[in-house]
Amino acid sequence: MAFQGKKLMDDPDDAVTDFIEGLVETYPALHYLDGFPQIKVVLCSDISTDKVAVISGGGSGHEPAHAGFVGEGMLSAAICGDVFTSPPVDSILAGIRAVTGPKGCLLIVKNYTGDRLNFGLAAEQAKSEGYKVEIVIVGDDCALPPPRGIAGRRGLAGTILVHKVAGAAAEAGLPLADVAAEAKYASEMVGTMGVALSVCTLPGQLTSDRLGPGKMELGLGIHGEPGAAVVDLLPVDPVVSHVLQQILSKDTQYVPITRGSRVVVMINGLGATPIMELMIASGKTVPKLQVEHGLAVDRVYTGSFMTSLDMAGFSISIMKADEVILRRLDAPTKAPYWPVSVEGDRPPTKLPVPIPTSCSRKNDEGSNRPQELSVQGRILEAAIEAAANAIINIKDCLNEWDGKVGDGDCGSTLFRGAAAIVEDMRNYYPLNDAAETINEIGSSVERVMGGTSGIMYRTYSTH
Amino acid sequence: MAFQGKKLMDDPDDAVTDFIEGLVETYPALHYLDGFPQIKVVLCSDISTDKVAVISGGGSGHEPAHAGFVGEGMLSAAICGDVFTSPPVDSILAGIRAVTGPKGCLLIVKNYTGDRLNFGLAAEQAKSEGYKVEIVIVGDDCALPPPRGIAGRRGLAGTILVHKVAGAAAEAGLPLADVAAEAKYASEMVGTMGVALSVCTLPGQLTSDRLGPGKMELGLGIHGEPGAAVVDLLPVDPVVSHVLQQILSKDTQYVPITRGSRVVVMINGLGATPIMELMIASGKTVPKLQVEHGLAVDRVYTGSFMTSLDMAGFSISIMKADEVILRRLDAPTKAPYWPVSVEGDRPPTKLPVPIPTSCSRKNDEGSNRPQELSVQGRILEAAIEAAANAIINIKDCLNEWDGKVGDGDCGSTLFRGAAAIVEDMRNYYPLNDAAETINEIGSSVERVMGGTSGIMYRTYSTH
Repeated sequence: MAFQGKKLMDDPDDAVTDFIEGLVETYPALHYLDGFPQIKVVLCSDISTDKVAVISGGGSGHEPAHAGFVGEGMLSAAICGDVFTSPPVDSILAGIRAVTGPKGCLLIVKNYTGDRLNFGLAAEQAKSEGYKVEIVIVGDDCALPPPRGIAGRRGLAGTILVHKVAGAAAEAGLPLADVAAEAKYASEMVGTMGVALSVCTLPGQLTSDRLGPGKMELGLGIHGEPGAAVVDLLPVDPVVSHVLQQILSKDTQYVPITRGSRVVVMINGLGATPIMELMIASGKTVPKLQVEHGLAVDRVYTGSFMTSLDMAGFSISIMKADEVILRRLDAPTKAPYWPVSVEGDRPPTKLPVPIPTSCSRKNDEGSNRPQELSVQGRILEAAIEAAANAIINIKDCLNEWDGKVGDGDCGSTLFRGAAAIVEDMRNYYPLNDAAETINEIGSSVERVMGGTSGIMYRTYSTH
Repeated sequence: MAFQGKKLMDDPDDAVTDFIEGLVETYPALHYLDGFPQIKVVLCSDISTDKVAVISGGGSGHEPAHAGFVGEGMLSAAICGDVFTSPPVDSILAGIRAVTGPKGCLLIVKNYTGDRLNFGLAAEQAKSEGYKVEIVIVGDDCALPPPRGIAGRRGLAGTILVHKVAGAAAEAGLPLADVAAEAKYASEMVGTMGVALSVCTLPGQLTSDRLGPGKMELGLGIHGEPGAAVVDLLPVDPVVSHVLQQILSKDTQYVPITRGSRVVVMINGLGATPIMELMIASGKTVPKLQVEHGLAVDRVYTGSFMTSLDMAGFSISIMKADEVILRRLDAPTKAPYWPVSVEGDRPPTKLPVPIPTSCSRKNDEGSNRPQELSVQGRILEAAIEAAANAIINIKDCLNEWDGKVGDGDCGSTLFRGAAAIVEDMRNYYPLNDAAETINEIGSSVERVMGGTSGIMYRTYSTH
């Protein structure tokens, strides 16, 4: 049974137009081309045509791709189609004419039939008008095994890395042939696979319930095309392992990455995935690439770059890196959505920054659990343990009550405090000294509970 | 009935720890403090203590806030609590000790009881150790009418703007009293209100179904606290109007913004809102502020800055701007999540960039609909209209079929083509000349359809 998804928009038919209006309101340097909204071309206001122009685009619904990557050092223009629909030849041609100078332009096209046809025909027409035009097709999908029929592999988030390499090469002043060669090489070095917890909802349309409760899909496409398999929802660790194995598979040989290679990795949100979950995936991905696959990870790009409307999930892209590719990826750009503060050498492992003054009370001279408990000590231990267990047992109930008036974490917070008390008591509470033990309870509570209740109990127990 | 939300993570209890691991993997300059993961403090590796340190933090679940705003020119350190739980005093104190030099530190705290207690006690302890410490509390919520009881107004996304103002003031070398004064002034100039389509799901917990199908909530909090009202889902235009009226209300006088004021605006995603929808909201917000409220909009920040886990929806923050505030907001920063390419003067309205060579065929010499149709012309008109209407009528059916094999847009694409043909035929098809009319159909189709089918039909009709 399909259902009606919720979206914050006006007329669904105006979604792309309204998106572009907001984009140019947000970024002073971005403009749309005359003919808007019928022609949906986003470009920079200070167009310089003395370098190779890098143009991309395709159906909308993948925001910030592609319009959010327009800016000095990345794309010269983005041609936006309707949602999941390739832009028509007229729009592409208008974009080419607007930004292409004597050094020509490179069109970077994701491998879909509509995009190849429309961009291909626009390129032919532009050439017939005297423009120098090259096309690079990106098909980085690694989810489906070969043979992939005549359509070939789909273009996914790896395309963004190709944009950056090409844009930086053009900005460096290279001629068209070299910019195209670098982009083509980059496109051959990158592999991507996606995982989704939900399918996407097209504006104004019903949502498919192909992914029911407790299910996830491996390898689906950025338009919600069915993937390799629908499986039970798994923790992120095995999901990441599976995705990395698919991308780096020796059977398909989709990317020429072998042990000892240097790589960059992109963890890409599919639209509705919070940054917390994307970062958790990054944190799992990097050590696996290093330890299990023997790769050196030079850069990590985590964010939502090539989305599928409101799909929940992520894709992982791995690109084989070398000095030239790293220089291109690190080159400055004014494109609003290229991630900042990612460039620069990464330490092999991150060491924690030491705290100037120790503030861990427990490891100072500290207290100790007595070798032998007095009668009073045994009574105190039993009482503390009973109280702590009572709290541990009503965790869910307290959370539920708190959810009605606050943020629903009261039970979890008290649980953490009670569990820490039980553990610390076993290790070092001076149970034969009741006053000092109460002090230690305050210290345990302060350390782990946080929240409003944490500080309140701490204050009660130490004053 | 509550239900189980889907998340890509491992042990829900490790969500915050795993998030921080991914964050420091992604950004080479970010590190965690010794004592991690029990102490969750994110800071810069190249800590300089010769300027005022700006420290913030609070419960996690609001990513990228606050750890994503650590970097030169913004926060010196972020103290991360567990999900929706204020960090304990020990952690805050460790963070203060790690980044505070002789010029002291400013703590920016969202107005929640737990945060005020924990940061307040940590500040007192730090002072007793000889540190200079100031605190600024942010309570920018405008959803709920006064009186707000002893708790006061909640801290929302406006806090991020206060971080930036304070961070830039500290980076400029100002003494603690001045940094605190600028932050306090900024906190008094900003108002925020949120709108949600879904409540958030805490890791490992069930999701409340408080917001059922077709419902939205006005003014709820960033921990899912109930808001001002649950109403039927509305288009974004009236939603934005309502939110702006609430923030700028003359009754509550929450922010001192009046006609003629200069403002900056932040459209903040709550976690699961795609960039397309955030940008659509921006595109509606700016003209309303200008035209309906008579304000000059100096900057627009659109993105997900202060989220509520996986909540769908957005908040709007409006801050009264002046030269000092704009200079602080525009100052460069290495904080990964402060938006780039937003600074600089905005034109009063955006004019489209002209296309160098006209590529609009229709407006050239063009064809004209005959004053009087021949018999053949009338037959042709009837045939075209019947065919177009047949396509228009099966739009949904075609979308459904296409959804099974492709991206589900075939019916919408053909609908656009058929509708354009009907309209263009009325305006200018030379219906007495069948061959030329077919050419014009090709031109209509090319202009509006796009996609694979657009280019195919165009090719058929013109060759």
